[in-house]
Amino acid sequence: MPYKAISGIGEFGLIDKIAALVEPTLSAVPELLMGIGDDCAVYQPSTQLLQVATTDMLVDQVHFDLLTTPLKLLGSKCISVNVSDICAMNALPRYALISIAVPSSFSVAMIEELYMGMSYAAKEYGLAIAGGDTSSSRSGLIISVSMIGEVSREQLTSRDGAKPGELICVSGSLGGAAAGLKLLMREKEIMLEHIENNEPYNKSVMADLKEYSESIRHQLLPLARLDIVRFFHSKNIYPSSMIDISDGLSSDLQHICHRSSTGALIHENRIPIHPSTRRIADELHDDALTWALTGGEDYQLLFTIPEDEYPMIVDNKEISVIGEITDSEAGLNLSDIYGMTIDLTSIKGFDHFNS
Amino acid sequence: MPYKAISGIGEFGLIDKIAALVEPTLSAVPELLMGIGDDCAVYQPSTQLLQVATTDMLVDQVHFDLLTTPLKLLGSKCISVNVSDICAMNALPRYALISIAVPSSFSVAMIEELYMGMSYAAKEYGLAIAGGDTSSSRSGLIISVSMIGEVSREQLTSRDGAKPGELICVSGSLGGAAAGLKLLMREKEIMLEHIENNEPYNKSVMADLKEYSESIRHQLLPLARLDIVRFFHSKNIYPSSMIDISDGLSSDLQHICHRSSTGALIHENRIPIHPSTRRIADELHDDALTWALTGGEDYQLLFTIPEDEYPMIVDNKEISVIGEITDSEAGLNLSDIYGMTIDLTSIKGFDHFNS
Repeated sequence: MPYKAISGIGEFGLIDKIAALVEPTLSAVPELLMGIGDDCAVYQPSTQLLQVATTDMLVDQVHFDLLTTPLKLLGSKCISVNVSDICAMNALPRYALISIAVPSSFSVAMIEELYMGMSYAAKEYGLAIAGGDTSSSRSGLIISVSMIGEVSREQLTSRDGAKPGELICVSGSLGGAAAGLKLLMREKEIMLEHIENNEPYNKSVMADLKEYSESIRHQLLPLARLDIVRFFHSKNIYPSSMIDISDGLSSDLQHICHRSSTGALIHENRIPIHPSTRRIADELHDDALTWALTGGEDYQLLFTIPEDEYPMIVDNKEISVIGEITDSEAGLNLSDIYGMTIDLTSIKGFDHFNS
Repeated sequence: MPYKAISGIGEFGLIDKIAALVEPTLSAVPELLMGIGDDCAVYQPSTQLLQVATTDMLVDQVHFDLLTTPLKLLGSKCISVNVSDICAMNALPRYALISIAVPSSFSVAMIEELYMGMSYAAKEYGLAIAGGDTSSSRSGLIISVSMIGEVSREQLTSRDGAKPGELICVSGSLGGAAAGLKLLMREKEIMLEHIENNEPYNKSVMADLKEYSESIRHQLLPLARLDIVRFFHSKNIYPSSMIDISDGLSSDLQHICHRSSTGALIHENRIPIHPSTRRIADELHDDALTWALTGGEDYQLLFTIPEDEYPMIVDNKEISVIGEITDSEAGLNLSDIYGMTIDLTSIKGFDHFNS
């Protein structure tokens, strides 16, 4: 595709292109009365439901690296991380607003790739891309997504409802996103080394990433667990507390316990870690449990349920019971495979200002 | 105040500080059930009203320059530019979500200044700061604000309702923000020149900006015209179309005409330009009319009303009638003080990708 600079079509030409790319998402939400094209999006809220709203900003070199991240997947990920926050409230996503600040080196085709990924993901989750803002950036690409969802008062789930004796559950598997990131960083180093030494970077030196595709997908194309929220709604399961795992199991469990004024005990041998994640950890002389506890970006749901609801989730292979809520005096503990107890508060998740 | 790095309190320490700073905004909106502290904000939408949503991103070196912009005023401006979009729909602002990406050189006190400005402005407009996202930035400060407002179906005003024969009106005065920007840029150059030449930059060489305070306020501390929206609501005035002037009168009038499939004729001698703006233009050998037409950032409201509603606005000194909507075949024209007609489409406003 020949390079076409954004300056060639201007800001309003770009907005027209974006409006056309997100158009397929609009049919999912007929309550949207006006999308892109005015000062605001306009919609009719459901009279019976509460609304939930969240926002996440993704910054080049902080949250992503365009050397290892295809723009289409980045677009999809921006949508998924916000849907994940909506899911953590047991809510369904409805509308997204997307702001981008774009370096002048970007081509029109690059922006189209990004919005194709966003539009595809939005359609999968059943939400409408209803508006946004475009501007230039003097540094790298910046993407900010805000999202509005809906939930009934009965289904609304916050972080503060966990009670001693309840079961701690997690969806899917953990540590995979961290494994994928490590692999991509290793591959990037190999590539940069070859470029620096003027050596060809081709198939003979590239790692065959196919065998790692599961972990790389977890990192580059995480999926929000809207399927778990729909499972709760269809089975009339009411989690007592919930959070999505963006900073790591340890840190996010601490948020639930802090807000609920409880302790927790989780068991190492019950934490769901995919065999391929363990294999990659071995290969990189790293530790899969540490990735699961602190790696973050898995975007799984961590939630608590009363013990008598256990029969309702036991058959769902996507849900693991990893421990139980305790009194706050008992603290936050991990019982390891040797039966030793480790203080979870000593294990920190990702902190943007202490990394 | 001694310098205190953000890394000293960490991401969650920073979030606690931010939550305390925005706390005073929450009382204005009792329908907000949960603010900062969970995965999403939660609120009860009004059952009788539509909701409107908008977002704006402000990027260091693109939208602002910290050399000439106090952080408290920047915080206030971030809120005002979004309230201005809400006002353009004839709606009232309710909730804001704020994302920031912060360079590691920033101190805790700098973030506090920024949020003090946001919180102050939010309180003035009667909206709640309900949530957000914080992360680090490898380049400059980035701020993204999303805002949700409410409006009745009858009062909702979009860009596409203007009809031939209607009056074109504008609030306040235009060109002041551009005048303020030019003054600040001139002062910045003088400062940098003195620093480069190792000469003292002090009161003896600093311009006395006091006499320009009105224009500088327009640039650094623009106020959204929520007072005009309240005036419409209280007097049962229903503008047929409306937009806020962020790109310049010429460009924003073109948006209304394009969406309404009309033309327009405006008169130079009716465009409200403050005498101080004209004085600054003379001093800088620049043109105040060009600033009004293309300078942008005035955040005044541009709207149309049927001629028979004229008596309802005539006594409002903050509203000027500057022209009339015409058939689309007549095009978009400015009649200058000599009676010459100028094609407005040849006069472009700010374009992020053609600047």
